[in-house]
Amino acid sequence: MILIRDATIVGDKIIQGDILVEDGRIREIGKDIGEKADDVIDAKGKIAIPGLVNTHTHVAMTLFRGYGEDLPLHEWLQNKIWPAEAKMTAEDIRIGSLLAYVEMIKSGITSFNEMYIAGINEMKEAAEEVGMRGIVSLGLFDLIPGHSYEGEIKGMKESIFKPSELIMPAVSCHAPYTCSKELIGEAGKFAKEKKLKFHMHVSETRKEMLDVLKAHGKYPFEYLDELGVVHEDSIFAHASWVTKREIALVGKRKATISNNPESNLKLATGGICPVKEYIDAGANLTLGTDGAASNNSLSIFETMKLMGLLQKHRYWKADILPTRRIFESATVNGAKALGFDSGELKEGKLADIALLNRDVNLVPEHDIIANLIYAAEPQNVNDVIINGKLVMKDRKMLTVDEEKIKKDAEKTAKELVKR
Amino acid sequence: MILIRDATIVGDKIIQGDILVEDGRIREIGKDIGEKADDVIDAKGKIAIPGLVNTHTHVAMTLFRGYGEDLPLHEWLQNKIWPAEAKMTAEDIRIGSLLAYVEMIKSGITSFNEMYIAGINEMKEAAEEVGMRGIVSLGLFDLIPGHSYEGEIKGMKESIFKPSELIMPAVSCHAPYTCSKELIGEAGKFAKEKKLKFHMHVSETRKEMLDVLKAHGKYPFEYLDELGVVHEDSIFAHASWVTKREIALVGKRKATISNNPESNLKLATGGICPVKEYIDAGANLTLGTDGAASNNSLSIFETMKLMGLLQKHRYWKADILPTRRIFESATVNGAKALGFDSGELKEGKLADIALLNRDVNLVPEHDIIANLIYAAEPQNVNDVIINGKLVMKDRKMLTVDEEKIKKDAEKTAKELVKR
Repeated sequence: MILIRDATIVGDKIIQGDILVEDGRIREIGKDIGEKADDVIDAKGKIAIPGLVNTHTHVAMTLFRGYGEDLPLHEWLQNKIWPAEAKMTAEDIRIGSLLAYVEMIKSGITSFNEMYIAGINEMKEAAEEVGMRGIVSLGLFDLIPGHSYEGEIKGMKESIFKPSELIMPAVSCHAPYTCSKELIGEAGKFAKEKKLKFHMHVSETRKEMLDVLKAHGKYPFEYLDELGVVHEDSIFAHASWVTKREIALVGKRKATISNNPESNLKLATGGICPVKEYIDAGANLTLGTDGAASNNSLSIFETMKLMGLLQKHRYWKADILPTRRIFESATVNGAKALGFDSGELKEGKLADIALLNRDVNLVPEHDIIANLIYAAEPQNVNDVIINGKLVMKDRKMLTVDEEKIKKDAEKTAKELVKR
Repeated sequence: MILIRDATIVGDKIIQGDILVEDGRIREIGKDIGEKADDVIDAKGKIAIPGLVNTHTHVAMTLFRGYGEDLPLHEWLQNKIWPAEAKMTAEDIRIGSLLAYVEMIKSGITSFNEMYIAGINEMKEAAEEVGMRGIVSLGLFDLIPGHSYEGEIKGMKESIFKPSELIMPAVSCHAPYTCSKELIGEAGKFAKEKKLKFHMHVSETRKEMLDVLKAHGKYPFEYLDELGVVHEDSIFAHASWVTKREIALVGKRKATISNNPESNLKLATGGICPVKEYIDAGANLTLGTDGAASNNSLSIFETMKLMGLLQKHRYWKADILPTRRIFESATVNGAKALGFDSGELKEGKLADIALLNRDVNLVPEHDIIANLIYAAEPQNVNDVIINGKLVMKDRKMLTVDEEKIKKDAEKTAKELVKR
C-alpha cells in the first residue's frame, strides 16, 4: 500500500489531493486520506500524472544510439545497423533492453510496445526485473532472403508466451513490403484467435507506400483492410504517407496509429503524420519513440512536444491540436491501444503513476497541461510507480542497479559493432 | 582557481584530461595538471563542453510560459501577450529574467542575446547576480502606434550602458515591418560608431517577407543591405522565409543567423530556416530559443536536435548536416556572434564550461557529438562554470536562491495576467 500525499493530480480535472494505491491499483483519490500505508510519499509541490505510454519501440536498439551517425540512410542501414543486428545475441538484447527500460522510466514512461527480430524471452524477463509494463513481440517478415512463410509462422507461434502480470505477447508483422499477403492474413487471423494485439509498420516512407500500390493495386491501408488486419486491436506505426481515404478507413475501423515524429524526421522520410485528421476521423492516436538508433533518446515528453509543433507547422495553424488531445495520446489512448487498464488517474485503474518536480522549466503554471506538453523534460520526473510498486524514487532506480546496466551496455555496444 | 580533474573534454578532438581555470579563463588543458587549485572538481565520468550560447531570446517572457495556449496566433498576441506585456513593470521583468537565467544555466547555456521592450537595467543586473554572460538590448520600433522615430532614437541612446565584465549593451531594431527605413539606418550607424552588435528579427513569416517586398520593392535582406546593416556584427533572428539570392548575400556579408526552430514551429510560421544553405554560403549560423512564451522551454540541447531533425526533413536527406556543424552553431559560432572570446575549450579562452553527467540517455557512447546533439537533455547538465566561476554544482545554483526565484515568478506571473 502506498499513499501519495498532497500532490497536484492531473485527471480530467486538476485537483490537489492524495492517491491511495493498493494491490497494484488506485484504490482512492481524495483529500486527506487517513489510511495508514506502508509507504507514504510526501508529494507536496509535485505533479502526479498517469505514466506515459510508448506505443512503438525497439528497446535493444539503445545499443546503437549514435552509431553510424551522419551517413546517408541506405549506407547507415546496410553497412552499420543490419550487420550489427545480425551479430546480436540474446544476451546483448537483454542488456540493451535493460538500458531502454531504465531510460524510459527516467522520462516518465511506464508502458511500452516492442517489436524486434529476436530475444523475446530476454526482453520480457528484463522488463519484469525492472518492473515495467509492456507488450513484447517478434517482428515477422517472409519477403527477406533467409526467411520463409513457414519459418515465420513457426517463429510467431513459438514467440507467444504466457502473459505475466506485467508483460503481454502480441503478433507483429514487420511491414506490408516485407511480408507476403499470406503471412499478414495468417498472422492477423492467429492474433484474433488468441485475442492478441496486432502490430505493424505502415507507410513510413513515400517509396514504400508507392511500392505497395504498385504490387497490389491498392494503397497500404486499403490493402491491409482486405487482409482483415485493420481493426480496434491493431497498432500501426508511422502511417505518415497516407491518402485521405485511408485516414477515413483507419478512423472507421477505430484502429490505433502510433505517431513517431522524431524517428520520421531523423530518417528523413519526408512525412509528417496527419495526426489531427486521424483524430477527427475517429482513430486512436498514440505516440512512440521508435528505437534509440533513430531518435536518439526515448522521451515521450519530447515526442508530445514535437507532435504538437509539427501539427502546427503542417497546417500553418497554431491552434490546430489542443494540448489535452496530445496528453491523451501519450496516456489514456496509449494504454487503450496496448489493452492495459491504465493511462488515467482514476479510482480502480492500474497504478502506473509518475510524480514530477516543479523545476524552473515548469514555472509559472498558467496551464499545467501546456507545461506538460511544451515545457516538461525528463529531469522533471522524480518518482515512478508501476503496477502499484515504486520503481524509481528521487530519480534513483529501486529495482535494478543502474550503474551496472550502464557499464554492461557500454561494453556490449562497443564489442558488438567490432565483432 | 578551479581545477576540473579527469573529464572527457570536447574540443576539436575529444581527450581525457584536466582543465585549469584562472582569472576567468582556461589557463591550461592537459593530463594530470599538478597545480593546487582552490576548488577541485572531480569530473571522472563527466563530459566537459563549452557552455551553450543562446543567440536570440526574450528572457522576461518566461512569465508567459503556457499563457493563452491553444489560441489562434492573432488572438494569442492581441488578447493575451500584448496586453500583459503592456502592464509589466521593471520589477516584473527582473523576476522573469532571473527565472530564465536559472533555467538556461540548468540546461547548459552560459551566454544569451536579449532584446526586449523595457527593463534593460533590471535584466542586466539580474544576469550579473546570477553570474551569466550576455548581451542586453532594447528592441526599437517606430511604426507602432505610440512610438516615434525621435522617441526610439532617444530610447536607444539611453539604453546603452557601460559594459560590465559579463554584460554588453547592443542596438536592436525589432523588425523591417515595424521600423522605418530612417530608424534602421540611424540605429545601424550608431551601432557601428559605438562598436556594438546589431540585432533584428527578419523574415519570420511569409506575410512579413511579402509586406517588405511590397513596401520597398526589395526582399528583406536586400532592403536591409541597402541600409547598411547586413555585416559581420549583425545578428538576424529567424530568417526562414528567404530567397536563394538573400542567402548568398547574408553569406557574403558574413552576418549571423539565429535559427529558432521551436518558436517557428510553435507559432505556425510555416518556415524552416534553410540552415544548410546559409552555412554553405558562408553565414555564421547560430541557435536561439526565442522567448519561453513561444517555445515553451529554454533548452539549446532541444534546439540543436530540432535543427538537425528539421534539416534532414526539409531536404529529405539524413546526412545533410553533420553533427559537428550543429555543435559549432550552439557554441563557437554563437560566441563569435555575440563577440565573446568563449565557445571553445581551448587554452586562453574565457572559462564558460558545462560538465555533463553520463545518465542512461548518453549510454553507449559510439559518438560523443551525436549523443550531445540527438540524445542529451538538460538533466545531463551537472555543473556550470561561467567566467571562471562555479555558478551551479550538482544541479544546484550557487549564486542565487532558486526556490525564491520560482516562488516570486509564480506569484508575479499570476498577478500580472490578472491586473
